[in-house]
Amino acid sequence: MKPAVRLVEVGPRDGLQNEKAIIATADKIELIDRLSATGLQSIEATSFVSPKWVPQLADAAEVFTGIARKPGVHYPVLVPNEQGYDRARAAGVEEIAVFTAASEAFNRKNINASIAESLARFAPVMQRAKADGVKVRGYVSTVLGCPYQGEVAVADVVRVARELHAMGCYEISLGDTIGVGTPGKARAMLKSVAAEVPMAALAVHFHDTYGQALANILACLEEGVAVVDSAVSGVGGCPYAKGASGNVASEDVVYMLHGLGIRTGIDLDRLADTGRWLSALLGRETGSKVAKALTPA
Amino acid sequence: MKPAVRLVEVGPRDGLQNEKAIIATADKIELIDRLSATGLQSIEATSFVSPKWVPQLADAAEVFTGIARKPGVHYPVLVPNEQGYDRARAAGVEEIAVFTAASEAFNRKNINASIAESLARFAPVMQRAKADGVKVRGYVSTVLGCPYQGEVAVADVVRVARELHAMGCYEISLGDTIGVGTPGKARAMLKSVAAEVPMAALAVHFHDTYGQALANILACLEEGVAVVDSAVSGVGGCPYAKGASGNVASEDVVYMLHGLGIRTGIDLDRLADTGRWLSALLGRETGSKVAKALTPA
Repeated sequence: MKPAVRLVEVGPRDGLQNEKAIIATADKIELIDRLSATGLQSIEATSFVSPKWVPQLADAAEVFTGIARKPGVHYPVLVPNEQGYDRARAAGVEEIAVFTAASEAFNRKNINASIAESLARFAPVMQRAKADGVKVRGYVSTVLGCPYQGEVAVADVVRVARELHAMGCYEISLGDTIGVGTPGKARAMLKSVAAEVPMAALAVHFHDTYGQALANILACLEEGVAVVDSAVSGVGGCPYAKGASGNVASEDVVYMLHGLGIRTGIDLDRLADTGRWLSALLGRETGSKVAKALTPA
Repeated sequence: MKPAVRLVEVGPRDGLQNEKAIIATADKIELIDRLSATGLQSIEATSFVSPKWVPQLADAAEVFTGIARKPGVHYPVLVPNEQGYDRARAAGVEEIAVFTAASEAFNRKNINASIAESLARFAPVMQRAKADGVKVRGYVSTVLGCPYQGEVAVADVVRVARELHAMGCYEISLGDTIGVGTPGKARAMLKSVAAEVPMAALAVHFHDTYGQALANILACLEEGVAVVDSAVSGVGGCPYAKGASGNVASEDVVYMLHGLGIRTGIDLDRLADTGRWLSALLGRETGSKVAKALTPA
Protein backbone atom coordinates (compact mmCIF):
# COMPACT_ATOMS: atom_id res chain seq x y z
CA MET A 1 0.00 0.00 0.00
CA LYS A 2 1.14 3.55 -0.64
CA PRO A 3 2.37 5.52 2.41
CA ALA A 4 0.06 8.46 1.63
CA VAL A 5 -3.41 8.71 0.10
CA ARG A 6 -5.18 11.78 -1.25
CA LEU A 7 -8.90 12.05 -0.55
CA VAL A 8 -11.13 13.78 -3.07
CA GLU A 9 -14.02 15.15 -1.03
CA VAL A 10 -17.18 14.98 -3.14
CA GLY A 11 -19.73 15.94 -0.48
CA PRO A 12 -20.42 19.50 -1.66
CA ARG A 13 -21.33 18.33 -5.16
CA ASP A 14 -22.02 14.59 -5.55
CA GLY A 15 -23.30 14.45 -1.98
CA LEU A 16 -25.55 17.48 -1.77
CA GLN A 17 -26.92 16.92 -5.28
CA ASN A 18 -28.47 13.70 -4.01
CA GLU A 19 -29.91 15.10 -0.79
CA LYS A 20 -33.52 16.22 -0.65
CA ALA A 21 -32.90 19.26 1.56
CA ILE A 22 -32.33 22.60 -0.18
CA ILE A 23 -29.06 24.14 0.97
CA ALA A 24 -28.52 27.88 0.98
CA THR A 25 -25.63 29.15 -1.12
CA ALA A 26 -23.95 30.60 1.97
CA ASP A 27 -24.07 27.18 3.64
CA LYS A 28 -22.52 25.52 0.60
CA ILE A 29 -19.70 28.07 0.78
CA GLU A 30 -19.25 27.52 4.51
CA LEU A 31 -19.15 23.75 3.98
CA ILE A 32 -16.35 24.00 1.43
CA ASP A 33 -14.35 26.41 3.59
CA ARG A 34 -14.77 24.18 6.63
CA LEU A 35 -13.60 21.23 4.54
CA SER A 36 -10.50 23.02 3.28
CA ALA A 37 -9.60 23.79 6.90
CA THR A 38 -9.44 20.05 7.71
CA GLY A 39 -6.39 19.51 5.50
CA LEU A 40 -8.24 18.07 2.51
CA GLN A 41 -6.32 18.67 -0.72
CA SER A 42 -9.14 18.17 -3.21
CA ILE A 43 -12.73 19.30 -2.82
CA GLU A 44 -15.26 18.92 -5.60
CA ALA A 45 -16.99 22.27 -5.24
CA THR A 46 -20.01 22.31 -7.53
CA SER A 47 -21.27 21.52 -11.00
CA PHE A 48 -21.80 23.82 -13.98
CA VAL A 49 -24.57 21.71 -15.49
CA SER A 50 -27.51 23.55 -16.95
CA PRO A 51 -29.74 25.00 -14.18
CA LYS A 52 -32.65 23.64 -16.21
CA TRP A 53 -31.51 20.07 -15.47
CA VAL A 54 -30.38 20.54 -11.88
CA PRO A 55 -31.94 23.68 -10.36
CA GLN A 56 -30.24 23.18 -6.98
CA LEU A 57 -26.90 23.77 -8.75
CA ALA A 58 -27.95 27.05 -10.36
CA ASP A 59 -25.76 28.88 -7.82
CA ALA A 60 -22.56 27.20 -9.05
CA ALA A 61 -20.81 30.48 -9.95
CA GLU A 62 -21.89 32.15 -6.71
CA VAL A 63 -20.57 29.18 -4.70
CA PHE A 64 -17.30 29.06 -6.55
CA THR A 65 -16.59 32.77 -6.32
CA GLY A 66 -17.73 32.81 -2.68
CA ILE A 67 -15.31 30.26 -1.28
CA ALA A 68 -11.98 31.27 0.24
CA ARG A 69 -9.69 29.33 -2.04
CA LYS A 70 -6.85 27.94 0.01
CA PRO A 71 -3.46 27.72 -1.70
CA GLY A 72 -2.57 24.15 -2.60
CA VAL A 73 -6.17 22.92 -2.46
CA HIS A 74 -7.82 21.78 -5.68
CA TYR A 75 -11.46 22.65 -6.27
CA PRO A 76 -12.62 20.70 -9.33
CA VAL A 77 -16.10 21.38 -10.68
CA LEU A 78 -18.25 19.29 -12.98
CA VAL A 79 -18.60 20.54 -16.54
CA PRO A 80 -20.90 18.72 -18.99
CA ASN A 81 -20.22 20.76 -22.14
CA GLU A 82 -18.75 23.97 -23.57
CA GLN A 83 -21.50 26.15 -22.13
CA GLY A 84 -20.66 24.81 -18.69
CA TYR A 85 -16.99 25.31 -19.41
CA ASP A 86 -17.58 28.97 -20.27
CA ARG A 87 -19.53 29.54 -17.06
CA ALA A 88 -16.91 27.72 -14.98
CA ARG A 89 -14.03 29.68 -16.47
CA ALA A 90 -15.87 32.96 -15.99
CA ALA A 91 -16.12 32.06 -12.30
CA GLY A 92 -12.35 31.47 -12.13
CA VAL A 93 -12.31 27.65 -12.18
CA GLU A 94 -8.88 26.06 -12.68
CA GLU A 95 -9.82 22.38 -12.60
CA ILE A 96 -12.81 20.63 -14.11
CA ALA A 97 -14.26 17.14 -14.18
CA VAL A 98 -16.00 15.41 -17.04
CA PHE A 99 -18.18 12.33 -16.64
CA THR A 100 -19.33 9.32 -18.53
CA ALA A 101 -20.20 5.71 -17.68
CA ALA A 102 -18.95 2.26 -18.57
CA SER A 103 -22.54 1.17 -19.21
CA GLU A 104 -24.22 2.11 -22.49
CA ALA A 105 -27.65 1.84 -20.87
CA PHE A 106 -26.68 4.20 -18.06
CA ASN A 107 -25.25 6.84 -20.39
CA ARG A 108 -28.33 6.62 -22.55
CA LYS A 109 -30.67 7.13 -19.55
CA ASN A 110 -28.49 9.64 -17.73
CA ILE A 111 -27.14 11.93 -20.43
CA ASN A 112 -29.05 10.70 -23.48
CA ALA A 113 -25.93 9.75 -25.36
CA SER A 114 -23.91 6.65 -26.15
CA ILE A 115 -20.50 6.31 -24.51
CA ALA A 116 -18.86 7.30 -27.81
CA GLU A 117 -21.12 10.34 -28.12
CA SER A 118 -20.40 11.41 -24.56
CA LEU A 119 -16.68 11.24 -25.24
CA ALA A 120 -17.12 13.20 -28.46
CA ARG A 121 -18.98 15.92 -26.52
CA PHE A 122 -16.00 16.29 -24.20
CA ALA A 123 -13.49 16.66 -27.03
CA PRO A 124 -13.88 20.44 -27.52
CA VAL A 125 -13.94 20.98 -23.74
CA MET A 126 -10.75 18.96 -23.37
CA GLN A 127 -9.07 20.94 -26.14
CA ARG A 128 -9.98 24.27 -24.59
CA ALA A 129 -8.94 23.07 -21.14
CA LYS A 130 -5.57 22.02 -22.50
CA ALA A 131 -5.09 25.40 -24.20
CA ASP A 132 -6.13 27.20 -21.00
CA GLY A 133 -3.93 25.12 -18.69
CA VAL A 134 -7.03 23.77 -16.90
CA LYS A 135 -6.65 20.32 -15.34
CA VAL A 136 -9.31 17.75 -16.17
CA ARG A 137 -10.48 14.87 -13.98
CA GLY A 138 -12.58 12.14 -15.59
CA TYR A 139 -15.34 10.10 -13.97
CA VAL A 140 -16.35 6.66 -15.14
CA SER A 141 -19.51 5.54 -13.41
CA THR A 142 -21.20 2.11 -13.15
CA VAL A 143 -17.82 0.33 -13.13
CA LEU A 144 -19.13 -2.64 -11.12
CA GLY A 145 -22.77 -2.73 -12.14
CA CYS A 146 -25.54 -0.70 -13.73
CA PRO A 147 -29.10 -0.11 -12.50
CA TYR A 148 -30.39 -0.58 -16.07
CA GLN A 149 -28.23 -3.21 -17.76
CA GLY A 150 -27.00 -5.11 -14.66
CA GLU A 151 -23.54 -6.51 -15.36
CA VAL A 152 -20.88 -4.22 -16.80
CA ALA A 153 -17.94 -5.85 -18.59
CA VAL A 154 -14.52 -4.96 -17.17
CA ALA A 155 -13.35 -4.51 -20.78
CA ASP A 156 -15.84 -1.63 -21.13
CA VAL A 157 -14.47 0.05 -18.01
CA VAL A 158 -10.91 -0.34 -19.30
CA ARG A 159 -11.83 1.07 -22.70
CA VAL A 160 -13.57 4.16 -21.31
CA ALA A 161 -10.80 4.85 -18.75
CA ARG A 162 -8.16 4.49 -21.46
CA GLU A 163 -10.02 6.91 -23.74
CA LEU A 164 -10.38 9.53 -20.99
CA HIS A 165 -6.69 9.22 -20.20
CA ALA A 166 -5.76 9.49 -23.88
CA MET A 167 -7.98 12.58 -24.19
CA GLY A 168 -5.95 14.26 -21.44
CA CYS A 169 -7.59 13.53 -18.09
CA TYR A 170 -4.83 13.61 -15.48
CA GLU A 171 -6.88 11.41 -13.17
CA ILE A 172 -9.71 8.97 -13.78
CA SER A 173 -12.12 8.16 -10.96
CA LEU A 174 -13.65 4.70 -11.22
CA GLY A 175 -17.10 4.82 -9.66
CA ASP A 176 -19.29 2.03 -8.32
CA THR A 177 -22.35 4.22 -8.71
CA ILE A 178 -24.83 1.79 -7.21
CA GLY A 179 -22.49 0.30 -4.62
CA VAL A 180 -23.02 -3.32 -5.64
CA GLY A 181 -19.35 -4.26 -5.90
CA THR A 182 -17.45 -6.55 -3.55
CA PRO A 183 -13.69 -6.52 -2.88
CA GLY A 184 -12.64 -9.26 -5.30
CA LYS A 185 -14.47 -7.66 -8.20
CA ALA A 186 -13.25 -4.19 -7.27
CA ARG A 187 -9.67 -5.40 -7.15
CA ALA A 188 -9.92 -7.26 -10.47
CA MET A 189 -11.51 -4.24 -12.17
CA LEU A 190 -8.82 -1.87 -10.88
CA LYS A 191 -6.07 -4.27 -11.87
CA SER A 192 -7.41 -4.50 -15.42
CA VAL A 193 -7.65 -0.73 -15.76
CA ALA A 194 -4.19 -0.26 -14.27
CA ALA A 195 -2.77 -2.50 -16.98
CA GLU A 196 -3.68 0.24 -19.50
CA VAL A 197 -3.69 3.49 -17.47
CA PRO A 198 -0.96 4.23 -14.90
CA MET A 199 -2.13 3.52 -11.33
CA ALA A 200 -0.95 7.02 -10.37
CA ALA A 201 -3.68 8.39 -12.67
CA LEU A 202 -6.47 6.35 -11.06
CA ALA A 203 -8.87 7.04 -8.21
CA VAL A 204 -11.61 4.86 -6.72
CA HIS A 205 -15.11 6.06 -5.90
CA PHE A 206 -17.30 3.74 -3.88
CA HIS A 207 -20.84 4.09 -2.67
CA ASP A 208 -21.79 2.28 0.52
CA THR A 209 -25.22 1.10 -0.63
CA TYR A 210 -24.45 -2.51 0.34
CA GLY A 211 -21.98 -1.61 3.10
CA GLN A 212 -19.01 -2.76 1.02
CA ALA A 213 -17.24 0.55 0.41
CA LEU A 214 -14.44 0.34 2.98
CA ALA A 215 -13.69 -3.29 2.15
CA ASN A 216 -13.56 -2.37 -1.54
CA ILE A 217 -11.26 0.56 -0.79
CA LEU A 218 -8.99 -1.72 1.23
CA ALA A 219 -8.72 -4.16 -1.69
CA CYS A 220 -7.89 -1.28 -4.05
CA LEU A 221 -5.30 0.15 -1.63
CA GLU A 222 -3.68 -3.27 -1.62
CA GLU A 223 -3.57 -3.03 -5.45
CA GLY A 224 -1.73 0.30 -5.13
CA VAL A 225 -4.34 3.00 -5.65
CA ALA A 226 -3.53 6.27 -3.84
CA VAL A 227 -6.58 8.47 -4.49
CA VAL A 228 -9.99 7.83 -2.90
CA ASP A 229 -13.23 9.77 -3.40
CA SER A 230 -15.55 10.15 -0.39
CA ALA A 231 -18.15 12.50 1.09
CA VAL A 232 -18.16 13.97 4.57
CA SER A 233 -20.93 12.48 6.74
CA GLY A 234 -21.69 10.09 3.87
CA VAL A 235 -24.01 12.66 2.34
CA GLY A 236 -25.92 11.78 -0.79
CA GLY A 237 -28.39 8.93 -0.93
CA CYS A 238 -28.68 6.37 -3.65
CA PRO A 239 -31.30 7.30 -6.26
CA TYR A 240 -31.57 3.61 -7.21
CA ALA A 241 -32.35 2.26 -3.73
CA LYS A 242 -34.63 4.34 -1.52
CA GLY A 243 -33.31 4.90 1.99
CA ALA A 244 -29.95 3.36 1.13
CA SER A 245 -26.56 4.94 1.69
CA GLY A 246 -24.71 6.94 -0.92
CA ASN A 247 -21.06 7.94 -0.89
CA VAL A 248 -18.74 6.33 1.60
CA ALA A 249 -18.22 8.69 4.56
CA SER A 250 -14.91 10.55 4.48
CA GLU A 251 -14.54 10.21 8.26
CA ASP A 252 -14.69 6.40 8.03
CA VAL A 253 -12.15 6.34 5.19
CA VAL A 254 -9.74 8.62 7.08
CA TYR A 255 -10.10 6.51 10.24
CA MET A 256 -9.20 3.37 8.28
CA LEU A 257 -6.29 5.02 6.46
CA HIS A 258 -4.78 6.45 9.63
CA GLY A 259 -5.26 3.07 11.34
CA LEU A 260 -3.33 1.50 8.46
CA GLY A 261 -0.54 4.01 9.03
CA ILE A 262 -1.33 5.82 5.76
CA ARG A 263 -0.96 9.59 5.79
CA THR A 264 -3.77 11.82 4.52
CA GLY A 265 -2.88 15.24 5.95
CA ILE A 266 -6.45 15.42 7.31
CA ASP A 267 -7.44 16.29 10.87
CA LEU A 268 -10.08 13.65 11.63
CA ASP A 269 -11.62 15.55 14.56
CA ARG A 270 -12.16 18.67 12.46
CA LEU A 271 -13.56 16.56 9.64
CA ALA A 272 -16.00 14.86 12.03
CA ASP A 273 -17.00 18.28 13.39
CA THR A 274 -17.74 19.44 9.86
CA GLY A 275 -19.77 16.33 9.23
CA ARG A 276 -21.84 16.93 12.39
CA TRP A 277 -22.41 20.54 11.38
CA LEU A 278 -23.55 19.41 7.92
CA SER A 279 -25.83 16.67 9.28
CA ALA A 280 -27.50 19.20 11.56
CA LEU A 281 -27.96 21.53 8.60
CA LEU A 282 -29.52 18.73 6.55
CA GLY A 283 -31.65 17.61 9.49
CA ARG A 284 -30.48 14.04 9.16
CA GLU A 285 -28.40 11.56 11.06
CA THR A 286 -24.77 11.39 10.05
CA GLY A 287 -23.91 8.57 7.67
CA SER A 288 -20.48 8.22 9.28
CA LYS A 289 -20.09 5.53 11.93
CA VAL A 290 -16.85 7.13 13.08
CA ALA A 291 -18.67 10.43 13.64
CA LYS A 292 -21.31 8.60 15.71
CA ALA A 293 -18.73 6.74 17.74
CA LEU A 294 -16.71 9.90 18.40
CA THR A 295 -19.75 11.99 19.38
CA PRO A 296 -19.85 12.49 23.14
CA ALA A 297 -22.92 10.80 24.63
CA MET B 1 -8.94 -17.09 1.04
CA LYS B 2 -10.78 -20.26 1.98
CA PRO B 3 -13.49 -21.42 -0.48
CA ALA B 4 -16.10 -21.68 2.29
CA VAL B 5 -16.75 -19.72 5.45
CA ARG B 6 -18.95 -20.60 8.42
CA LEU B 7 -20.92 -17.79 10.02
CA VAL B 8 -21.64 -17.89 13.72
CA GLU B 9 -24.88 -15.94 14.15
CA VAL B 10 -24.75 -14.11 17.48
CA GLY B 11 -27.87 -11.97 17.10
CA PRO B 12 -30.16 -13.93 19.46
CA ARG B 13 -27.68 -13.60 22.35
CA ASP B 14 -24.92 -10.98 21.90
CA GLY B 15 -27.24 -8.86 19.79
CA LEU B 16 -30.48 -8.93 21.79
CA GLN B 17 -28.64 -8.63 25.10
CA ASN B 18 -27.50 -5.17 24.00
CA GLU B 19 -30.87 -3.97 22.69
CA LYS B 20 -33.11 -1.89 24.90
CA ALA B 21 -36.37 -3.49 23.78
CA ILE B 22 -37.70 -6.42 25.82
CA ILE B 23 -38.28 -9.42 23.59
CA ALA B 24 -40.86 -12.04 24.41
CA THR B 25 -39.58 -15.58 24.84
CA ALA B 26 -41.76 -16.77 21.95
CA ASP B 27 -40.17 -14.16 19.69
CA LYS B 28 -36.66 -15.26 20.69
CA ILE B 29 -37.62 -18.80 19.77
CA GLU B 30 -39.11 -17.71 16.45
CA LEU B 31 -35.97 -15.70 15.67
CA ILE B 32 -33.71 -18.71 16.19
CA ASP B 33 -35.96 -20.98 14.14
CA ARG B 34 -36.13 -18.44 11.32
CA LEU B 35 -32.34 -18.18 11.40
CA SER B 36 -31.84 -21.93 11.22
CA ALA B 37 -34.08 -21.98 8.13
CA THR B 38 -31.66 -19.64 6.30
CA GLY B 39 -28.91 -22.25 6.16
CA LEU B 40 -26.86 -20.93 9.07
CA GLN B 41 -24.84 -23.70 10.71
CA SER B 42 -24.11 -22.02 14.06
CA ILE B 43 -26.52 -19.90 16.08
CA GLU B 44 -25.64 -18.63 19.53
CA ALA B 45 -28.98 -19.20 21.19
CA THR B 46 -28.86 -17.65 24.65
CA SER B 47 -26.82 -17.30 27.81
CA PHE B 48 -27.10 -19.14 31.11
CA VAL B 49 -25.70 -16.30 33.18
CA SER B 50 -27.37 -15.61 36.49
CA PRO B 51 -30.80 -13.98 36.00
CA LYS B 52 -29.74 -11.61 38.77
CA TRP B 53 -27.06 -10.13 36.47
CA VAL B 54 -28.98 -10.14 33.21
CA PRO B 55 -32.73 -10.39 33.84
CA GLN B 56 -33.59 -10.35 30.12
CA LEU B 57 -31.83 -13.73 29.83
CA ALA B 58 -33.78 -15.37 32.65
CA ASP B 59 -35.74 -17.33 30.03
CA ALA B 60 -32.62 -19.11 28.72
CA ALA B 61 -33.91 -22.61 29.45
CA GLU B 62 -37.35 -21.82 28.01
CA VAL B 63 -35.77 -20.47 24.84
CA PHE B 64 -33.43 -23.40 24.43
CA THR B 65 -36.08 -26.05 24.99
CA GLY B 66 -38.53 -24.12 22.79
CA ILE B 67 -36.50 -24.01 19.59
CA ALA B 68 -36.87 -26.63 16.88
CA ARG B 69 -33.32 -27.88 16.81
CA LYS B 70 -32.35 -28.57 13.22
CA PRO B 71 -29.99 -31.48 12.61
CA GLY B 72 -26.50 -30.29 11.73
CA VAL B 73 -26.99 -26.84 13.26
CA HIS B 74 -24.96 -25.91 16.34
CA TYR B 75 -26.64 -23.87 19.08
CA PRO B 76 -23.92 -22.76 21.50
CA VAL B 77 -24.97 -20.98 24.67
CA LEU B 78 -22.93 -18.82 27.01
CA VAL B 79 -22.04 -20.36 30.35
CA PRO B 80 -20.18 -18.32 32.98
CA ASN B 81 -19.70 -20.98 35.67
CA GLU B 82 -20.77 -24.40 36.93
CA GLN B 83 -24.23 -23.20 38.00
CA GLY B 84 -24.80 -21.99 34.45
CA TYR B 85 -23.42 -25.26 33.11
CA ASP B 86 -25.90 -27.23 35.23
CA ARG B 87 -28.82 -25.16 33.99
CA ALA B 88 -27.64 -25.42 30.38
CA ARG B 89 -27.21 -29.17 30.54
CA ALA B 90 -30.62 -29.58 32.17
CA ALA B 91 -32.07 -27.76 29.15
CA GLY B 92 -30.34 -30.16 26.77
CA VAL B 93 -27.43 -27.97 25.64
CA GLU B 94 -24.70 -29.74 23.67
CA GLU B 95 -22.34 -26.83 23.00
CA ILE B 96 -21.30 -24.02 25.31
CA ALA B 97 -19.21 -20.88 25.09
CA VAL B 98 -16.96 -19.40 27.76
CA PHE B 99 -15.70 -15.85 27.73
CA THR B 100 -12.82 -13.76 28.92
CA ALA B 101 -10.93 -10.72 27.66
CA ALA B 102 -7.39 -9.88 26.62
CA SER B 103 -7.56 -6.76 28.77
CA GLU B 104 -7.07 -7.03 32.54
CA ALA B 105 -9.02 -3.82 33.09
CA PHE B 106 -11.99 -5.12 31.07
CA ASN B 107 -12.13 -8.44 32.90
CA ARG B 108 -11.94 -6.65 36.20
CA LYS B 109 -14.83 -4.32 35.33
CA ASN B 110 -16.89 -6.90 33.45
CA ILE B 111 -16.62 -10.07 35.50
CA ASN B 112 -14.73 -8.82 38.55
CA ALA B 113 -11.81 -11.14 38.01
CA SER B 114 -8.31 -11.06 36.58
CA ILE B 115 -7.70 -12.92 33.33
CA ALA B 116 -6.02 -15.69 35.28
CA GLU B 117 -8.95 -15.93 37.69
CA SER B 118 -11.46 -16.02 34.84
CA LEU B 119 -9.56 -18.92 33.27
CA ALA B 120 -9.42 -20.70 36.61
CA ARG B 121 -13.21 -20.35 36.94
CA PHE B 122 -13.67 -22.10 33.60
CA ALA B 123 -11.46 -25.03 34.53
CA PRO B 124 -14.15 -27.13 36.26
CA VAL B 125 -16.67 -26.27 33.52
CA MET B 126 -14.18 -27.34 30.86
CA GLN B 127 -13.51 -30.60 32.67
CA ARG B 128 -17.17 -31.43 32.99
CA ALA B 129 -17.81 -30.46 29.35
CA LYS B 130 -15.03 -32.78 28.24
CA ALA B 131 -16.43 -35.63 30.32
CA ASP B 132 -19.95 -34.96 28.95
CA GLY B 133 -18.84 -34.68 25.31
CA VAL B 134 -19.97 -31.04 25.23
CA LYS B 135 -18.12 -28.80 22.76
CA VAL B 136 -16.73 -25.54 24.11
CA ARG B 137 -16.21 -22.31 22.18
CA GLY B 138 -14.06 -19.59 23.77
CA TYR B 139 -14.45 -15.84 23.41
CA VAL B 140 -11.60 -13.40 23.85
CA SER B 141 -12.89 -9.84 23.90
CA THR B 142 -11.09 -6.47 23.60
CA VAL B 143 -8.53 -7.95 21.19
CA LEU B 144 -7.90 -4.61 19.45
CA GLY B 145 -8.63 -2.14 22.22
CA CYS B 146 -10.30 -1.72 25.60
CA PRO B 147 -12.73 0.94 26.79
CA TYR B 148 -10.88 1.10 30.13
CA GLN B 149 -7.18 0.53 29.45
CA GLY B 150 -7.02 1.67 25.80
CA GLU B 151 -4.31 -0.29 24.01
CA VAL B 152 -4.23 -4.06 24.35
CA ALA B 153 -0.94 -5.83 23.64
CA VAL B 154 -1.11 -8.47 20.92
CA ALA B 155 0.96 -10.70 23.20
CA ASP B 156 -1.91 -10.66 25.72
CA VAL B 157 -4.38 -11.75 23.04
CA VAL B 158 -2.06 -14.55 21.97
CA ARG B 159 -1.57 -15.74 25.55
CA VAL B 160 -5.29 -15.86 26.35
CA ALA B 161 -6.20 -17.54 23.05
CA ARG B 162 -3.46 -20.12 23.58
CA GLU B 163 -4.70 -20.85 27.11
CA LEU B 164 -8.30 -21.30 25.97
CA HIS B 165 -7.13 -23.65 23.23
CA ALA B 166 -4.96 -25.59 25.65
CA MET B 167 -7.92 -25.87 28.05
CA GLY B 168 -9.94 -27.57 25.32
CA CYS B 169 -11.86 -24.90 23.38
CA TYR B 170 -12.35 -26.25 19.86
CA GLU B 171 -12.73 -22.70 18.52
CA ILE B 172 -11.62 -19.31 19.82
CA SER B 173 -13.46 -16.20 18.72
CA LEU B 174 -11.30 -13.07 18.71
CA GLY B 175 -13.54 -10.10 19.45
CA ASP B 176 -13.00 -6.41 18.77
CA THR B 177 -15.56 -5.55 21.41
CA ILE B 178 -15.49 -1.79 20.89
CA GLY B 179 -14.94 -1.89 17.13
CA VAL B 180 -11.86 0.35 17.11
CA GLY B 181 -9.67 -1.92 15.01
CA THR B 182 -8.53 -1.28 11.45
CA PRO B 183 -7.53 -3.90 8.88
CA GLY B 184 -3.76 -3.77 9.35
CA LYS B 185 -4.03 -4.23 13.10
CA ALA B 186 -6.69 -6.92 12.74
CA ARG B 187 -4.52 -8.84 10.31
CA ALA B 188 -1.40 -8.54 12.47
CA MET B 189 -3.30 -9.66 15.58
CA LEU B 190 -4.79 -12.69 13.81
CA LYS B 191 -1.42 -13.62 12.33
CA SER B 192 0.21 -13.55 15.77
CA VAL B 193 -2.51 -15.70 17.30
CA ALA B 194 -2.42 -18.13 14.36
CA ALA B 195 1.29 -18.66 15.01
CA GLU B 196 0.30 -20.36 18.32
CA VAL B 197 -3.25 -21.67 17.72
CA PRO B 198 -4.22 -23.38 14.44
CA MET B 199 -6.09 -21.01 12.09
CA ALA B 200 -8.79 -23.69 11.75
CA ALA B 201 -9.56 -23.14 15.46
CA LEU B 202 -9.96 -19.37 15.13
CA ALA B 203 -12.93 -17.13 14.44
CA VAL B 204 -13.15 -13.34 14.14
CA HIS B 205 -15.80 -11.20 15.79
CA PHE B 206 -15.99 -7.57 14.73
CA HIS B 207 -18.23 -4.78 15.86
CA ASP B 208 -18.99 -2.04 13.35
CA THR B 209 -18.74 0.89 15.78
CA TYR B 210 -16.30 2.73 13.52
CA GLY B 211 -17.56 1.19 10.27
CA GLN B 212 -14.45 -0.97 9.91
CA ALA B 213 -15.94 -4.44 10.40
CA LEU B 214 -16.16 -5.65 6.79
CA ALA B 215 -12.72 -4.29 5.93
CA ASN B 216 -11.32 -6.05 9.01
CA ILE B 217 -13.08 -9.27 8.04
CA LEU B 218 -11.64 -9.01 4.53
CA ALA B 219 -8.11 -8.64 5.91
CA CYS B 220 -8.66 -11.67 8.15
CA LEU B 221 -10.10 -13.75 5.29
CA GLU B 222 -6.95 -12.92 3.35
CA GLU B 223 -4.98 -14.29 6.34
CA GLY B 224 -6.95 -17.54 6.06
CA VAL B 225 -9.66 -17.36 8.73
CA ALA B 226 -12.78 -19.35 7.86
CA VAL B 227 -15.20 -18.57 10.70
CA VAL B 228 -16.87 -15.18 11.16
CA ASP B 229 -19.25 -14.04 13.92
CA SER B 230 -22.05 -11.64 12.97
CA ALA B 231 -25.59 -10.64 13.97
CA VAL B 232 -28.61 -10.46 11.71
CA SER B 233 -29.73 -6.88 11.11
CA GLY B 234 -26.63 -5.74 13.03
CA VAL B 235 -28.58 -6.00 16.29
CA GLY B 236 -26.91 -4.96 19.50
CA GLY B 237 -25.61 -1.47 20.09
CA CYS B 238 -22.30 -0.55 21.61
CA PRO B 239 -22.51 0.05 25.37
CA TYR B 240 -19.34 2.17 25.13
CA ALA B 241 -20.55 4.60 22.44
CA LYS B 242 -24.17 5.73 22.61
CA GLY B 243 -26.03 5.47 19.32
CA ALA B 244 -23.16 3.61 17.67
CA SER B 245 -23.41 0.31 15.85
CA GLY B 246 -22.76 -3.05 17.46
CA ASN B 247 -22.19 -6.36 15.75
CA VAL B 248 -21.49 -6.38 12.04
CA ALA B 249 -24.67 -7.29 10.16
CA SER B 250 -24.81 -10.89 8.96
CA GLU B 251 -26.49 -9.84 5.71
CA ASP B 252 -23.58 -7.54 4.83
CA VAL B 253 -21.02 -10.25 5.62
CA VAL B 254 -22.87 -12.82 3.51
CA TYR B 255 -23.17 -10.35 0.60
CA MET B 256 -19.41 -9.75 0.69
CA LEU B 257 -18.56 -13.44 1.00
CA HIS B 258 -20.82 -14.47 -1.88
CA GLY B 259 -19.42 -11.61 -3.96
CA LEU B 260 -15.94 -12.97 -3.25
CA GLY B 261 -17.10 -16.37 -4.48
CA ILE B 262 -16.93 -17.83 -0.95
CA ARG B 263 -19.62 -20.34 -0.03
CA THR B 264 -21.64 -19.95 3.17
CA GLY B 265 -24.65 -22.20 2.58
CA ILE B 266 -26.86 -19.25 3.56
CA ASP B 267 -29.86 -17.97 1.61
CA LEU B 268 -29.27 -14.19 1.67
CA ASP B 269 -32.87 -13.30 0.81
CA ARG B 270 -34.24 -15.38 3.68
CA LEU B 271 -31.64 -13.92 6.01
CA ALA B 272 -32.59 -10.37 4.99
CA ASP B 273 -36.27 -11.24 5.51
CA THR B 274 -35.47 -12.44 9.01
CA GLY B 275 -33.55 -9.26 9.69
CA ARG B 276 -36.51 -7.15 8.55
CA TRP B 277 -38.86 -9.15 10.73
CA LEU B 278 -36.53 -8.66 13.72
CA SER B 279 -36.07 -4.93 13.10
CA ALA B 280 -39.84 -4.49 13.00
CA LEU B 281 -40.12 -6.42 16.27
CA LEU B 282 -37.47 -4.20 17.88
CA GLY B 283 -39.06 -1.07 16.42
CA ARG B 284 -35.77 0.09 14.97
CA GLU B 285 -34.20 0.56 11.58
CA THR B 286 -32.16 -2.36 10.31
CA GLY B 287 -28.41 -2.04 10.83
CA SER B 288 -27.77 -3.92 7.59
CA LYS B 289 -27.08 -1.81 4.51
CA VAL B 290 -27.71 -4.84 2.31
CA ALA B 291 -31.16 -5.25 3.87
CA LYS B 292 -31.92 -1.58 3.18
CA ALA B 293 -30.69 -1.79 -0.40
CA LEU B 294 -32.67 -4.98 -1.07
CA THR B 295 -35.90 -3.66 0.46
CA PRO B 296 -38.38 -2.72 -2.26
CA ALA B 297 -39.04 1.04 -2.25
